Amino acid sequence: MNFRTDMADERLEIHRSNIRNKEINGIIFNNKKINDNLSENIVTIVNDEGSKLIGKAKGKYITLEIKNIEMINKKEIEEIEKELVVLLKEFVRNNKSILVVGLGNAETTADSLGPKVVQNLKITRHLFKYLPELVEREEVELSAIAPGVLGTTGIETKDIISGIVEKIKPGCIIVIDAIISNNITRILKTIQISNTGIVPGSGVGNKRKEISEETIGIPVISIGVPTVVEASTIVENVFDKLKIKNKSSQIETALNSINSNVIVMPKDTDSIIDTLKSIIANSINSI
Amino acid sequence: MNFRTDMADERLEIHRSNIRNKEINGIIFNNKKINDNLSENIVTIVNDEGSKLIGKAKGKYITLEIKNIEMINKKEIEEIEKELVVLLKEFVRNNKSILVVGLGNAETTADSLGPKVVQNLKITRHLFKYLPELVEREEVELSAIAPGVLGTTGIETKDIISGIVEKIKPGCIIVIDAIISNNITRILKTIQISNTGIVPGSGVGNKRKEISEETIGIPVISIGVPTVVEASTIVENVFDKLKIKNKSSQIETALNSINSNVIVMPKDTDSIIDTLKSIIANSINSI
Amino acid sequence: MNFRTDMADERLEIHRSNIRNKEINGIIFNNKKINDNLSENIVTIVNDEGSKLIGKAKGKYITLEIKNIEMINKKEIEEIEKELVVLLKEFVRNNKSILVVGLGNAETTADSLGPKVVQNLKITRHLFKYLPELVEREEVELSAIAPGVLGTTGIETKDIISGIVEKIKPGCIIVIDAIISNNITRILKTIQISNTGIVPGSGVGNKRKEISEETIGIPVISIGVPTVVEASTIVENVFDKLKIKNKSSQIETALNSINSNVIVMPKDTDSIIDTLKSIIANSINSI
Amino acid sequence: MNFRTDMADERLEIHRSNIRNKEINGIIFNNKKINDNLSENIVTIVNDEGSKLIGKAKGKYITLEIKNIEMINKKEIEEIEKELVVLLKEFVRNNKSILVVGLGNAETTADSLGPKVVQNLKITRHLFKYLPELVEREEVELSAIAPGVLGTTGIETKDIISGIVEKIKPGCIIVIDAIISNNITRILKTIQISNTGIVPGSGVGNKRKEISEETIGIPVISIGVPTVVEASTIVENVFDKLKIKNKSSQIETALNSINSNVIVMPKDTDSIIDTLKSIIANSINSI
Repeated sequence: MNFRTDMADERLEIHRSNIRNKEINGIIFNNKKINDNLSENIVTIVNDEGSKLIGKAKGKYITLEIKNIEMINKKEIEEIEKELVVLLKEFVRNNKSILVVGLGNAETTADSLGPKVVQNLKITRHLFKYLPELVEREEVELSAIAPGVLGTTGIETKDIISGIVEKIKPGCIIVIDAIISNNITRILKTIQISNTGIVPGSGVGNKRKEISEETIGIPVISIGVPTVVEASTIVENVFDKLKIKNKSSQIETALNSINSNVIVMPKDTDSIIDTLKSIIANSINSI
Repeated sequence: MNFRTDMADERLEIHRSNIRNKEINGIIFNNKKINDNLSENIVTIVNDEGSKLIGKAKGKYITLEIKNIEMINKKEIEEIEKELVVLLKEFVRNNKSILVVGLGNAETTADSLGPKVVQNLKITRHLFKYLPELVEREEVELSAIAPGVLGTTGIETKDIISGIVEKIKPGCIIVIDAIISNNITRILKTIQISNTGIVPGSGVGNKRKEISEETIGIPVISIGVPTVVEASTIVENVFDKLKIKNKSSQIETALNSINSNVIVMPKDTDSIIDTLKSIIANSINSI
Repeated sequence: MNFRTDMADERLEIHRSNIRNKEINGIIFNNKKINDNLSENIVTIVNDEGSKLIGKAKGKYITLEIKNIEMINKKEIEEIEKELVVLLKEFVRNNKSILVVGLGNAETTADSLGPKVVQNLKITRHLFKYLPELVEREEVELSAIAPGVLGTTGIETKDIISGIVEKIKPGCIIVIDAIISNNITRILKTIQISNTGIVPGSGVGNKRKEISEETIGIPVISIGVPTVVEASTIVENVFDKLKIKNKSSQIETALNSINSNVIVMPKDTDSIIDTLKSIIANSINSI
Repeated sequence: MNFRTDMADERLEIHRSNIRNKEINGIIFNNKKINDNLSENIVTIVNDEGSKLIGKAKGKYITLEIKNIEMINKKEIEEIEKELVVLLKEFVRNNKSILVVGLGNAETTADSLGPKVVQNLKITRHLFKYLPELVEREEVELSAIAPGVLGTTGIETKDIISGIVEKIKPGCIIVIDAIISNNITRILKTIQISNTGIVPGSGVGNKRKEISEETIGIPVISIGVPTVVEASTIVENVFDKLKIKNKSSQIETALNSINSNVIVMPKDTDSIIDTLKSIIANSINSI
């Protein structure tokens, strides 16, 4: 099944709406309101059955929903950062050496979140060796790389990451990437954090080799922000609104005959990505 | 009528398909093949009646269609540049002092064409005054500005341009902007050149004050490259393909109830804009 | 006399060291410690005599000295911003419509401060007209432009500014620019605020037409951060240290015979400019 | 001995001027004029003695000297590219899989050459696997990465490169970096190509772990363009011009007591780096 979304809570909802009245095994769902502006959906996939149902790896997916990101004030930003730090600390555990990987293409607005976060990190790993007087012993050893995308490097991102990991042996990885949602109203308003790794390029390109504990050998925490929806999503949304029956596959075929290689994104993506970049970078800097 | 396109030839086609068998007064259409990779649609609006029919100002609109922009080679690029120089020279006439205005937001990929062209121009206006030994007397006096967009300046672009024009008194203006098309297959594959000015922000924002000879006082040549289509366009395209009858207004209403503020663009926009930026900058440098 | 600095307090010091024991008429100097990390030099030029002595226009020049900019923490940054807001409010007075001009070349690290500040401003001027529900009536009406430099526009910055001012009629201008100091230890560690306008390009280029109340017609407040010293400055510094007598003019001649077109800057300019950009943008956003 | 230059031909000249009349063993020097605008210095270090004399690894260093880079025309650019392709082909030999590494900090003008070249490469490695119809069998398999600098990644560049090399196993590496010269007139006017690898960060930072065949295991060709001189170099140049005797160590001490962390660069670095980036990228694309 093509969910047209990287977000676990959206996939679960689709699955639920398809199998009304039947029980779902292997997936636990929770919802939590943090404050008026912030709430969380928590999807935990506990076994292979659950994993298969929604096509996501076993583990925990927490989606932060931010109501008013366009008009957000300083206090609200600090509240999001505070919550994000709590979630990241829970996933990072006691690992004191963290490699942050900013996926995506810095030159493409909708795909630039990862590289922009990396640019705003307070990198400390080299200080422990070269300028130890500038760091506290118990501080996190932060390193980071924005490796670029397959089209500009010619190298699978997974190969770049695992090559570096074998050399510098961090305790865990935090991967940041732009992802896709199947709901245009969630674009740039949600942050999905998980402990299950990531498949780069879902957001605006073709799927690539998975980056996860299984493929890299150390825990991979992912931070994904949906920045685009597929064209087929928005077409289906309109069909639904107009109560026109259709099959997804027909829409897909029609779109492919026009141009399959397009994405849909908000006009003001640029400025909201700037806000989200700061929130995520500040949070990682405070782990 | 909402054409959902800034391109004169597309509007003419829509108008034609709506009024089958009736004659169109006030608009002349021509088509010209330059070579296997390059052809031109030429729309000339000769009177107010023609202007009203397709909602575009009187004047000449030439649309260059480039077949294989993704795979284009050096020789093909030079042929496009050669043709573009011919067209620009025709529009610029004997004006030796040209102000180039790169519209759009440099930080947003689909809107960055204008600022990127400006960055690649060989500016000479100041040399005539400060380093005359570096320029030939008959050379074009080129100046340029990328003023930014209303959201980042708080100033109507038309006001910035007319303010500058009153100070430096160029002979004419060449405005470069990202525009919208109603045909996803033409995105990043066509260049519309006209002698009628431009309404900035059509491409990815709200319409702004017109920049034209009427509002600025000197001839305004525009170079527009379609980089996005509206979401409603792609939805209608699918309706058409599936032969579902619908009214545009219903689709519009459905979309607005979801999120009206989105654009549709190719995934590889970044790299093609880079090619087009060079083609346009080189052509202006060769006037 | 060639002071090789745009900073009033440095020029005053040079003048003083040259005329030991003689009184200085027309210039008042004050010094103020704000906290352990922050102090101010206040130079007030009260008449033409004072103006002539140090080659700066009549008016007030306040230089903020920041001790530990490289290692600065959040609290210290907020203290600087607080002080900068106080100073700017004093200069801006009751003007509710402010045009911010970010001078310099965004592509050149040492010259990029102005454009970077502009990118981080909360622009509101257009909201008063188009989205009045988003602004308070008493709020400052902020507009901004980063016009580029003469070499990339071919247009004198003064002409761009005065053209725009005549169209949008702001109450005052705040100009931000990279300037030169004659003291390498002050580079990127001081901020000079004045109510006397600015001569763009002093920092890394050739001097241009003055931007001041006299030439533009409205008050011009300037914020200048020294980012470079001239090569001759650093050579003279070494001569002084080694107690070798020399004439400035000889050093100048020797340098010109080698290459006169060079600047001297710290290696870590990039990251400190990022910090200063935030401080200045936040302060202007809080006027 | 501190040569204050990464360029083999400059070091050889310094060494020569220090040991007048004595023979130099282990280093062969040749000079070749290509055309009026272009000449080459070829330094070949044949044994350990030669290597020790000028502190450079055994191998071949070719320095292209370009006379009029500021005013260069299209034909002259093509001649440089043609020569550079010949030199690169000689060094690359029959290796069909090349990894290009763009060293340096993209955000710092004088250090941005490497990342800018990488951005302008035609990457093909992934096409061989995913879109073989787009490449010829005998074509070079080009991959590239701009890994960032130690201060922004926290990871030694050598570790990043060797990690990637172990995964993708290219035949050889081409490293591009900004380097230092001890001659201000050669800045941005020379390109040093060698088959001996590189020590990153010489240009604008502290020296890092060597990237060479010895440390990485495959041939490492380096392309270095001098973009800065040290402050001590320019001071010594003036001392020499003024025929003042001095010891380098005194100047160094004096400078350190002022600020040791500065670089000297031309004001127009930005635009010349743009020209050089195209020349180098085009040449690599044509191997």
